[in-house]
Amino acid sequence: MLNNFILPTVFIESDRLKEFLGLDVTIITETFQHTGSFKFRAACNLALKVPNETILTASSGNFGQALAKACKILDKKCIVVMPKTSSRVKIEAVRSYGAKVELIDTNKISRNERVLELSRTMPEAYVASAYDDAFVVEGNATLGKEISQKNFDVVIVPIGGGGLISGIIKGLRDSNCASEVIGAEPSLANDAAMSLKAGQIIKNPKEPKTIADGARTISLGNLNWEIIKSEIKKIIEVPETMITEAVRHYFYFSNLKVEPTGALSLGAVIKEKENFKGRKIGLVVSGGNVDRDVYLKILNEEI
Amino acid sequence: MLNNFILPTVFIESDRLKEFLGLDVTIITETFQHTGSFKFRAACNLALKVPNETILTASSGNFGQALAKACKILDKKCIVVMPKTSSRVKIEAVRSYGAKVELIDTNKISRNERVLELSRTMPEAYVASAYDDAFVVEGNATLGKEISQKNFDVVIVPIGGGGLISGIIKGLRDSNCASEVIGAEPSLANDAAMSLKAGQIIKNPKEPKTIADGARTISLGNLNWEIIKSEIKKIIEVPETMITEAVRHYFYFSNLKVEPTGALSLGAVIKEKENFKGRKIGLVVSGGNVDRDVYLKILNEEI
Repeated sequence: MLNNFILPTVFIESDRLKEFLGLDVTIITETFQHTGSFKFRAACNLALKVPNETILTASSGNFGQALAKACKILDKKCIVVMPKTSSRVKIEAVRSYGAKVELIDTNKISRNERVLELSRTMPEAYVASAYDDAFVVEGNATLGKEISQKNFDVVIVPIGGGGLISGIIKGLRDSNCASEVIGAEPSLANDAAMSLKAGQIIKNPKEPKTIADGARTISLGNLNWEIIKSEIKKIIEVPETMITEAVRHYFYFSNLKVEPTGALSLGAVIKEKENFKGRKIGLVVSGGNVDRDVYLKILNEEI
Repeated sequence: MLNNFILPTVFIESDRLKEFLGLDVTIITETFQHTGSFKFRAACNLALKVPNETILTASSGNFGQALAKACKILDKKCIVVMPKTSSRVKIEAVRSYGAKVELIDTNKISRNERVLELSRTMPEAYVASAYDDAFVVEGNATLGKEISQKNFDVVIVPIGGGGLISGIIKGLRDSNCASEVIGAEPSLANDAAMSLKAGQIIKNPKEPKTIADGARTISLGNLNWEIIKSEIKKIIEVPETMITEAVRHYFYFSNLKVEPTGALSLGAVIKEKENFKGRKIGLVVSGGNVDRDVYLKILNEEI
């Protein structure tokens, strides 16, 4: 059913990138998915599966757009709580899909508090987490299933809340594919790497200031953690400079526009190139929705 | 045989672009083809089919890179004549594929004169035209064949020397696909549109100064003209502002990096939107190799 709504991922063989890295990489890009990121898989699955006619979430990023679009298609009501400091482009994108945007002053109330407040006034609404939800993992598993057809030795996946990597693991394993899965996380937001070392969820003290805005989550989701701790052996911590370098490599070598979070997997390979020699590598690019001004700065090597 | 070397084209369904235009468009992008443009189809077919071990061409753009790469794969020798004013990035790209670059001062000698001079000193070399060659049309026909599977009502194709549109027509018709094919040409380089009106090849007085550098050709190739005049009813002349607007639309709505020449087909649709209502439209994006500085200016709306 979900497959009727999502677009298949795009696999790109970029010889110039392969030659530059000296590695056998294949790009797996979700930048051309509906709403420009993998989040549509999760949001659409959730909107399909929950019986509620109204869905409520907090998101300043890709999940909000994805859920708004999914609800529009399925004729459900969608409310997205966003900080009033969110970029106009993102607010307008959510509104363009017909969702109601609740702007809040995060100095006065947190996003989650406002979601709770709202859910009390509308008990009929389903409160959707952008990553810690079984429907989210199940939606993202469709990507793992597509990736399983390529039989990679290793698949590298950006980590924020862990919904994507958990879903990919599920999709691969459900398809009897044994590809190793490695996480790629900003060094500035390395809670997943720390959690893996500690054997329990470690939280970031506050929202990390990484340029990879999709990885500014406080911690992994509980559901995702269970999958990650049993299946993931390695999470590579990527410095900011290697994230932006990766965005530029995609531009120059592969004609691909990616958002910083999406470039984490290539950043991880740049950091630990020697460890990937001789292996067939899949680089998951989670999305392409980067603000113009941020993109211009990256191309100008200002960041 | 050629199919073992080329990558299939990428079809992108971009809902935000569709909604913005109010039209049923599908993007057909060659930006992820080897060397970043459709030219690799033509160059590789030519290098495969000619018996000569050495191939000589003049190109400051995508054909030079494509031929250099094809010759590298097939272990042939490649010489590309380029103006010494070409961007370093482009010269280095050709060299990176192992081709020999002959830099010339175009104030002293034209590219074609230098190619002729060189061909006299190496009579064993095949002199390749970037567009007016049966092998070029045949190579580009592979794209037409792929496009035929989608049964578009109309396919819009950028026109420079006419090699791409001729090849697409051939591929469609060989596959018994009757999709209408429309050309998209810069207003500043409207020799093909003028030729169609006049019923004979009309040349640009000099190299046109359009931002769409792939369309800075002096005239259509003779071979292509025969195909174009019998099959093409309409060529849309696209103003420069609509070319750059189209590049921005691809960035914002579709996460797609395109070069200005590649954006011509969308530019044509922007210009004549009303004529495309209700039709299933294929927009051919010929390539993505835009210089960083040009791209930055376009995103900044400076051009």
